[in-house]
Amino acid sequence: MAKIILSKISTQPPKNADKKATIKKTEELAEKIGLMSEMMYAEKKNSLLVVLQGMDASGKDGVAKSVFMNCPALCIDAYAFKKPTEMEFAHDFLWRIHDKVPAKGQIKLFIRSHYEDILVQRVHQWIDDQKAVARLEAINHFEKLLLEDNDTTILKFYLHISHERQMEKLEERKTNPALQWKYKATDFDESKLWDKYMRYYEAAINGSDLKWHIVPSDMRWYRNYFVANIVHDTLNNLKPAFPLLLDAGKD
Amino acid sequence: MAKIILSKISTQPPKNADKKATIKKTEELAEKIGLMSEMMYAEKKNSLLVVLQGMDASGKDGVAKSVFMNCPALCIDAYAFKKPTEMEFAHDFLWRIHDKVPAKGQIKLFIRSHYEDILVQRVHQWIDDQKAVARLEAINHFEKLLLEDNDTTILKFYLHISHERQMEKLEERKTNPALQWKYKATDFDESKLWDKYMRYYEAAINGSDLKWHIVPSDMRWYRNYFVANIVHDTLNNLKPAFPLLLDAGKD
Repeated sequence: MAKIILSKISTQPPKNADKKATIKKTEELAEKIGLMSEMMYAEKKNSLLVVLQGMDASGKDGVAKSVFMNCPALCIDAYAFKKPTEMEFAHDFLWRIHDKVPAKGQIKLFIRSHYEDILVQRVHQWIDDQKAVARLEAINHFEKLLLEDNDTTILKFYLHISHERQMEKLEERKTNPALQWKYKATDFDESKLWDKYMRYYEAAINGSDLKWHIVPSDMRWYRNYFVANIVHDTLNNLKPAFPLLLDAGKD
Repeated sequence: MAKIILSKISTQPPKNADKKATIKKTEELAEKIGLMSEMMYAEKKNSLLVVLQGMDASGKDGVAKSVFMNCPALCIDAYAFKKPTEMEFAHDFLWRIHDKVPAKGQIKLFIRSHYEDILVQRVHQWIDDQKAVARLEAINHFEKLLLEDNDTTILKFYLHISHERQMEKLEERKTNPALQWKYKATDFDESKLWDKYMRYYEAAINGSDLKWHIVPSDMRWYRNYFVANIVHDTLNNLKPAFPLLLDAGKD
């Protein structure tokens, strides 16, 4: 795989993208994704793990909401991984993650994930480079286990937003009443560490055995479409179908 | 490490071993193990995972009882892994195992373990050789994670019993009222697959990155001593101690 350099990848929609048509297409894709999630749940053959990573305000919650809004709650779970609890810290970093991986038939969304343990922890030097490298290797082995031992498809998305656009969106959280619950003063401190985050994101992405999708995320409408498209195609390739009674109608 | 051939290793105590003195030593070791488990719990620095594997009637429960009988319940947990549940089967084979690994400060006993997934499953050809090899590799990576990311010491014991002695002990379960609850007719069917089990035990033991201890297990008293001795030395090397208030007594 060619090495990914984030600064060389656009955070904007393609020039010719039509906002209104794109939103409509996303809604159509979300409906199909919802139907296929029910089929997968009924079939219990495959499972899907969706990892959403990105800087603050890059739109992880937004993607989780819009792309999967037609999936019945029985077929999907979303986990927003936060600062580990005392008991989680008393275990290896993958302990709390492994607990939440999908069973056959399920879709699980990870809003932040095991990758934080080689991102935020590395940026703040809570772990050294050697530990980060060992953890990345452990992550690759872990993802291989999910794939090989349980047929779990893993989709990893990096929501790629510009630093300027992030600042705008963080400011918006101060004023928009529907977003004020997300406001945290410390997000502005983290934002100052932007270059370090980019460096370690690139190390994580380029050191991964499984592909990362880099999602142009400055515009919500295009970001959602981009992810929906990949999720749709991935589920479609698994060819989910409601299991039928083979002998039905023979009486 | 030299390749282990089980048929070349004795299942009997050494000729000069003194039964009465050995039982007394085991009790002394168990007391020290109990005290050190409390120190570890107080300290929350290290953790210990003890894997007990062996054929039916080899004495896994017996070891768990006699070696760890002085460990307070707060400091230790034992899990006897059985046939996976439907939900466990719907995940990778390490999912239910990872959930039970020790937090810092804890001792966990696994009576049967992740190794069953390359033993019983292989003997009955529920998995093929390729899958068994992939799983052994996954186990090595998993144990490395526990060791490197959480300072977990892993002790693996194979309770080595002769086929003849197993038959005696299985028969004893029919007549001894304190053991009848362990009687299962299917154990006799499994016993007929002895040679296959030995072959796959050797593959598991020789393919492990972390050392296995082969415990001569025909005699309960020697088996318990052998394990107690290793557990004691291992804990002792971790040098557990009750944390002290550094400034106590200064007032």
